[in-house]
Amino acid sequence: MRYLSTVILSLTFVFSTVGHVKAEADREKLLKEAGVYATFAVFKASEQWWHVEPHTRALATTDVKKLLTTYGDKLTADMYLLRGLSERADILIRIHSKEMVHNQNFLVDMMATGFGKYFTQVNAFNGITKALNYVPNFPDELKTELKTPPPQGSTYVVVVPIQKDAEWWTTSQDARIRMMKEHTDATVAYLKTVKRKLYHSSGLDDWDFITYFETSELSDFNNLVTGLLQVKENRHNRTFGSPLLLGTIRPLDEILEILAR
Amino acid sequence: MRYLSTVILSLTFVFSTVGHVKAEADREKLLKEAGVYATFAVFKASEQWWHVEPHTRALATTDVKKLLTTYGDKLTADMYLLRGLSERADILIRIHSKEMVHNQNFLVDMMATGFGKYFTQVNAFNGITKALNYVPNFPDELKTELKTPPPQGSTYVVVVPIQKDAEWWTTSQDARIRMMKEHTDATVAYLKTVKRKLYHSSGLDDWDFITYFETSELSDFNNLVTGLLQVKENRHNRTFGSPLLLGTIRPLDEILEILAR
Amino acid sequence: MRYLSTVILSLTFVFSTVGHVKAEADREKLLKEAGVYATFAVFKASEQWWHVEPHTRALATTDVKKLLTTYGDKLTADMYLLRGLSERADILIRIHSKEMVHNQNFLVDMMATGFGKYFTQVNAFNGITKALNYVPNFPDELKTELKTPPPQGSTYVVVVPIQKDAEWWTTSQDARIRMMKEHTDATVAYLKTVKRKLYHSSGLDDWDFITYFETSELSDFNNLVTGLLQVKENRHNRTFGSPLLLGTIRPLDEILEILAR
Amino acid sequence: MRYLSTVILSLTFVFSTVGHVKAEADREKLLKEAGVYATFAVFKASEQWWHVEPHTRALATTDVKKLLTTYGDKLTADMYLLRGLSERADILIRIHSKEMVHNQNFLVDMMATGFGKYFTQVNAFNGITKALNYVPNFPDELKTELKTPPPQGSTYVVVVPIQKDAEWWTTSQDARIRMMKEHTDATVAYLKTVKRKLYHSSGLDDWDFITYFETSELSDFNNLVTGLLQVKENRHNRTFGSPLLLGTIRPLDEILEILAR
Amino acid sequence: MRYLSTVILSLTFVFSTVGHVKAEADREKLLKEAGVYATFAVFKASEQWWHVEPHTRALATTDVKKLLTTYGDKLTADMYLLRGLSERADILIRIHSKEMVHNQNFLVDMMATGFGKYFTQVNAFNGITKALNYVPNFPDELKTELKTPPPQGSTYVVVVPIQKDAEWWTTSQDARIRMMKEHTDATVAYLKTVKRKLYHSSGLDDWDFITYFETSELSDFNNLVTGLLQVKENRHNRTFGSPLLLGTIRPLDEILEILAR
Repeated sequence: MRYLSTVILSLTFVFSTVGHVKAEADREKLLKEAGVYATFAVFKASEQWWHVEPHTRALATTDVKKLLTTYGDKLTADMYLLRGLSERADILIRIHSKEMVHNQNFLVDMMATGFGKYFTQVNAFNGITKALNYVPNFPDELKTELKTPPPQGSTYVVVVPIQKDAEWWTTSQDARIRMMKEHTDATVAYLKTVKRKLYHSSGLDDWDFITYFETSELSDFNNLVTGLLQVKENRHNRTFGSPLLLGTIRPLDEILEILAR
Repeated sequence: MRYLSTVILSLTFVFSTVGHVKAEADREKLLKEAGVYATFAVFKASEQWWHVEPHTRALATTDVKKLLTTYGDKLTADMYLLRGLSERADILIRIHSKEMVHNQNFLVDMMATGFGKYFTQVNAFNGITKALNYVPNFPDELKTELKTPPPQGSTYVVVVPIQKDAEWWTTSQDARIRMMKEHTDATVAYLKTVKRKLYHSSGLDDWDFITYFETSELSDFNNLVTGLLQVKENRHNRTFGSPLLLGTIRPLDEILEILAR
Repeated sequence: MRYLSTVILSLTFVFSTVGHVKAEADREKLLKEAGVYATFAVFKASEQWWHVEPHTRALATTDVKKLLTTYGDKLTADMYLLRGLSERADILIRIHSKEMVHNQNFLVDMMATGFGKYFTQVNAFNGITKALNYVPNFPDELKTELKTPPPQGSTYVVVVPIQKDAEWWTTSQDARIRMMKEHTDATVAYLKTVKRKLYHSSGLDDWDFITYFETSELSDFNNLVTGLLQVKENRHNRTFGSPLLLGTIRPLDEILEILAR
Repeated sequence: MRYLSTVILSLTFVFSTVGHVKAEADREKLLKEAGVYATFAVFKASEQWWHVEPHTRALATTDVKKLLTTYGDKLTADMYLLRGLSERADILIRIHSKEMVHNQNFLVDMMATGFGKYFTQVNAFNGITKALNYVPNFPDELKTELKTPPPQGSTYVVVVPIQKDAEWWTTSQDARIRMMKEHTDATVAYLKTVKRKLYHSSGLDDWDFITYFETSELSDFNNLVTGLLQVKENRHNRTFGSPLLLGTIRPLDEILEILAR
Repeated sequence: MRYLSTVILSLTFVFSTVGHVKAEADREKLLKEAGVYATFAVFKASEQWWHVEPHTRALATTDVKKLLTTYGDKLTADMYLLRGLSERADILIRIHSKEMVHNQNFLVDMMATGFGKYFTQVNAFNGITKALNYVPNFPDELKTELKTPPPQGSTYVVVVPIQKDAEWWTTSQDARIRMMKEHTDATVAYLKTVKRKLYHSSGLDDWDFITYFETSELSDFNNLVTGLLQVKENRHNRTFGSPLLLGTIRPLDEILEILAR
């Protein structure tokens, strides 16, 4: 069975519709507000994991579910399956909360479970959500375009960490607005099929931005990125990806079942 | 026994000529159409694998064959032997399907077999096939040359991932057409001995293109690449290879036998 | 239970208030004086550690405490929790003493304990504290601003190693003072919420400076770093981070308990 | 006992002088002809190897010798000892044959022996020999100098893979001839003490050239390389080494005995 | 107990004063002559080492001592302790002899001992000593300064491998002399507290120079390096360190005891 929207890890769903509605509201708020801290924690199962009995592995995955319930009032955590499409990584956990320390507490506890102790963390991208920086200066027409509702229930997730060069940062705000308008113009055609979210990382990680995308049309996404490579702002990307993470959005149970297979 | 063309992993061959003809037609279609998703999954056997009994290893390889049959209606998967010629990698599996999620499902299942759990994934290149971009603007003579039938039954495979620099992407389409014509002119002499295929990767991976080659004449291939290094477009290759993968095209059974030896 | 200031590893606290007052005074002196040698030793627990019995792990952590008492008269050592927020690293130990050899002796002994032998050192940043270099040339107003008392009892620690480029070092002292004034102006707004400390590393490590920060407001810290990226001096940062370390400041007992969980 | 020339792995020597003479002639031909494919396979023994009983290790090395006899009619394979002088690598095997697939078959079989399964391949440089490119355009005097017989029975081997930059490749042939003449002039003084051999790698590997040297005078070799760094062509070396491999030329039996010690 | 000068590994000391005097004289000669080959071999103990019984480890270290006696007439070998101060490395062995093959033989034998087989080699820097290159062209006053006797019995060792850029090597000898004079002027103030030694590496390793320093005043050393960063010659350092190695000079017995602790 597959959820219509992205995977919701809140297990309160099982026990109480009221609780679920509240948790879902909290989740939606966390995913929309500014000032929310996100950690993208990427893991690779150790070789030993795959040699543990499937039954024992299945049991171990229940620890993760319990932990998600415990932390349900402090944060949201979405799990994605990277295995096969992104070398060296199996899963991505995207965590949102009002304080970075909650993200750490959850991760530390997750890694201490019978499941987590077989997984090696290979990346930790940290970021914060902020009010839009350049959009207020865009023409009204573009602002209206940007209100296009993003797609729901997408199949794929892509995460691209970005570091800008020193020239970008020392360029005047006006010149950056012009470049970001050109950048944004190139995205308009894809607003219906690609959902985007931006995290600011300078000082919290070795990146300046973590860009997060959901889509069911990878062909569109390839065209979108090709379009973004062709605008002047691209000259100021010191790194774009490296690693870019491509994975799939699936119900938590399906991902855990795959890992226990 | 060696197939005339590249290795066909579809085991339906064994059971039904009719099924085989259909599978082969599907395969040819997948290999020619635009909008097809490819994953180049590169694996290295763990040290433990080589210490497992040959008999047990031989048994394990049968799991891979069964899996190929199961997925036969969703995708094609070609296996190549890199061991010895490409440091740190033993095999390359090239998968084509109409949806990237099929590629992932196959890989996840393959890695969960008694065979797969001894192999570590060291690369995953993802791409999509597209209609030709520059060729429509080439002179008719060159277009005719490009219809030269590629070689069949080649011995070697070479995979070269490429990332272009920001200057390339922000150069006008016209200037890029001129550079790509010069690039293509340099390939004409090798159309008969080198088969080429292009995948677009921007946004799906940390590359812009995955270039795939088959040849029986590595000497020709070395000359071809040397020629390509000498055209202006080469100045815009931020990376060319790194890793370049060189391997051999052999029947699946031969590769699996080598790995079980 | 949580200390108001950063974690104090001196266990003499437990036995003697007088001893503690002296140790604390020594510590404050070490943290303020010029000519003090610091080592930032970063560790990752091996996979085996997490498979050792929790009880045995808890016992092992007592070795670390004993060692801190033994070395209490020679150095201060602060432990921070990086696990989850910084890929591949679990803890950071920041050591200050009057001679680098003390730092090494402590680390060698720590790594030989039942605790330490399960931890792999992944970074060693070495530095020395010095009298302020550029500040004496700043305008009085700025000098006064810089006397703003830093925050106490912060939640987060960030360590950013920096390497300047050759152009920076061969630029005249005057031009560097001007650039550092612009840099310092950008920090004034954050003096109340971000505590800073600078270590000089040229010749002691592959860095020129180790910058150390404490804050409870990561949002402010992100703004501060974004501001520093926008001044001209940023053009001369050959590396800024890579790795940047983000962690939390917690009582030693809490960190050790987390590692034994 | 030490051979006068480089190590000859052909064990037919033991059984038949006639066979040996033929094998030696084949070998000399392979080492001199154009169109010969070379693979430089570099290996590091796993930690376990050194914990295997010396007696068992000695037995394992005999597998390598048998394999060399089996492949004697298809290829030559020279083994060198890198251990100690080149970090992370223990041995280098240089293989020459008329088809790259022979090199792979040999390596695959070698790695499947009781010896090979304890060794991890850390590099594979592939190349092809070609007729001289620039020499035909050199002045007669220099051509005569180049006929100086190289040294025999050298103690040391050095392998330097090289990648040229895009500017080199897009420079006119004439300008490249001039630069290569200057390069070659710098080598004349060392023709008597340093033996050189060139392999072309573009498209077969992530290098453009593999340069191979034998010498008994490392001091001369250091002077030679210093001279080559001082000519204009050096500006077009994107990489020169990284890794450079330094090792010793010893009889196969001595190397195998050292590895079994 | 601590030697006044750097650690002398020659164990002949124990048995014969006469032998010692000769060995010491040989050692002094090797450390001063031109044309001497040096290998800086850097090792990290494997995780297993620390889980071996202390008693067994102590026994294993005696193998190293025996080996040093055996090779005493061919080479000198100094061991330094890097553990804790240089990530990933525990010890550095600096070897001097008249032929690089002696360095290799010693290392191969050392790595085959009960001690060595638990250590992984992480670096091998190879170099040769030469007559001074630029000094003969310096003014007499500077030449006199350079005769300042270096410090004896220092506490710390620093090793910095350096690679110059192509511009350096293609700059005229005169311009290089001017830059090296400026470089040397910056060192004069530190001749009394910092001992220096230079090794030439081009062609023997992926470096051009290995610079070796001994000092008891790391603060002075930091100032010295900061001064060297400020001269024009620094613009031509493609790499300076990476890795820079910082360690301590201690008697062999103390280092071995620390490793057996």
